[in-house]
Amino acid sequence: MATLRVPEIIPSPTQDSERLRKAFEGLGTDEKGIIWILGHRNASQRKKIRDTYQQLYNESLIDRLHSELSGDFRNAVILWTYDPPERDAKLANAALKTKNKGINQLQVIIEIACASSPDHLMAVRQAYCSLFECSLEEDITLNISSLPLRKLLVGLVSSYRYDREVVDLNLADSEAAKLHEAIQMKHLDHDHVVWILGTRNFFQLRETFECYKQKFRNSIDQDIKSCGNGDLESMLGVIIWCISFPEKHFAEVIRAAIVGLGTDEDSLTRAIVTRAEIDMMKIRGEYFNMNNTSLDNAVIGDTSGDYKDFLMTLLGARI
Amino acid sequence: MATLRVPEIIPSPTQDSERLRKAFEGLGTDEKGIIWILGHRNASQRKKIRDTYQQLYNESLIDRLHSELSGDFRNAVILWTYDPPERDAKLANAALKTKNKGINQLQVIIEIACASSPDHLMAVRQAYCSLFECSLEEDITLNISSLPLRKLLVGLVSSYRYDREVVDLNLADSEAAKLHEAIQMKHLDHDHVVWILGTRNFFQLRETFECYKQKFRNSIDQDIKSCGNGDLESMLGVIIWCISFPEKHFAEVIRAAIVGLGTDEDSLTRAIVTRAEIDMMKIRGEYFNMNNTSLDNAVIGDTSGDYKDFLMTLLGARI
Repeated sequence: MATLRVPEIIPSPTQDSERLRKAFEGLGTDEKGIIWILGHRNASQRKKIRDTYQQLYNESLIDRLHSELSGDFRNAVILWTYDPPERDAKLANAALKTKNKGINQLQVIIEIACASSPDHLMAVRQAYCSLFECSLEEDITLNISSLPLRKLLVGLVSSYRYDREVVDLNLADSEAAKLHEAIQMKHLDHDHVVWILGTRNFFQLRETFECYKQKFRNSIDQDIKSCGNGDLESMLGVIIWCISFPEKHFAEVIRAAIVGLGTDEDSLTRAIVTRAEIDMMKIRGEYFNMNNTSLDNAVIGDTSGDYKDFLMTLLGARI
Repeated sequence: MATLRVPEIIPSPTQDSERLRKAFEGLGTDEKGIIWILGHRNASQRKKIRDTYQQLYNESLIDRLHSELSGDFRNAVILWTYDPPERDAKLANAALKTKNKGINQLQVIIEIACASSPDHLMAVRQAYCSLFECSLEEDITLNISSLPLRKLLVGLVSSYRYDREVVDLNLADSEAAKLHEAIQMKHLDHDHVVWILGTRNFFQLRETFECYKQKFRNSIDQDIKSCGNGDLESMLGVIIWCISFPEKHFAEVIRAAIVGLGTDEDSLTRAIVTRAEIDMMKIRGEYFNMNNTSLDNAVIGDTSGDYKDFLMTLLGARI
């Protein structure tokens, strides 16, 4: 369930474009107007607005937003305004080009591969090729020096999983055993691990993880943790979490972005922008279960100004 | 260059559907009429005919062709009438379900992955999921017991290569060395081999193979052959051939289908049906260079009746 609120009667893309244009013109920018329009339109409506704005004014809406806004607010509005596959291709590219990147940066790629639909992942790969003159997989091999991390990530982003609920219990049983064997041998990038995680449908994988717990007492992520606390173990933890409970994963991303001194605005923005149209209602519930406090209050407490208003709009608040 | 001949003025899909219907009705089937219509329409025209026929007569054109025709002629016409991604998904599935399959059966999967456009491969994977309730990769892991063959094939069908001519000479040099090292160690399914063959664009790979030859004197397929004559070596040979010279590969498929006693109609049909709209003109030229005889004469000599007429129509002959 999404938290995005789209009005029952939607202005035409031309009306929206004209109002956006008005918000950009004159002395100062009307940020509230921009939030009011873009923060209440879904992906296909935003696409029509982008196209119509370009036709009407012969300028890119994204470029204009870039020149009118600033800071975290700008980043959030622009990420939201992109077509989702293009947005995710850009996020993946930025993560890969980060120096000294760790799992914290790379988890956006896992989210695209393991917490999105197979068709979305395919669209991201197509967008990546269009934008960056090479495939996503090539940039992974180029920018990730650890061979086991590289092998897992290439396997995951190359997947095109079957998208309906078909589960084979015998297969879950035998693949739980194969995963257990690889974990026992501490061979976490074994070919079988890559094949299982990178080809099976999500329903089948959840059954396999459940089967693992029943057969071997511990959950698979507990057993992986006991192999060590390096990047490979962390990455596998994120992969299993994204497949099993994407809402818990994103609740945790938001918690980690907010907790302690300072805020990790990039992660906070990413989680809210990428999930507001998908499962943010569930993430909000999960956040409450995990932290005994509301996600909305946490965001209000850690952000301010237009940035806060925009995120809260995506979270369904009536600003 | 294609050999398919599409008339300058094309009847409407409704006219074509009506004529096909007429060819089916009455005593006996008018095979010549079917060849005349379907054998002169490209993929998007055939799609319109399929859709229009279904709407007009509330029956599937494919089903009707199946009940009206028989033998190799039927197989060829039906394969040609399918949407190309659906056709290739069915060919891949049939190959995987064959008992005692060898490289001869599996090469259709290599052709889809290495001698087609990246977008076509993606469309085949989507069609596969729609038709068979699992992903192509899952059926590869299920049906191919040899782990090295499985690893290579999963890597290849999962690729989504960059589709334009961008070549990095230094990369070609360093990856030629990596391939050479893997071949020297006889470790032909090394992760690096799978990454290089499964992620690089075709132009880059051709440069890498060229570089290999310059650095190490032998061509890469010669060196692979010297590792042994098992399935893995044969498969890598087909992969390199499909990437480097798809027209030579298909000329060889046709030659092998025709040579000796009896004809391998399935391979002959596959090569002509899948390439008539792509590069059959080049394949024909290559066939002549390799065999000093014309492909058309070879097909005429080894086939007969409606089957021969249909193949020759796809080869551009005026029947």
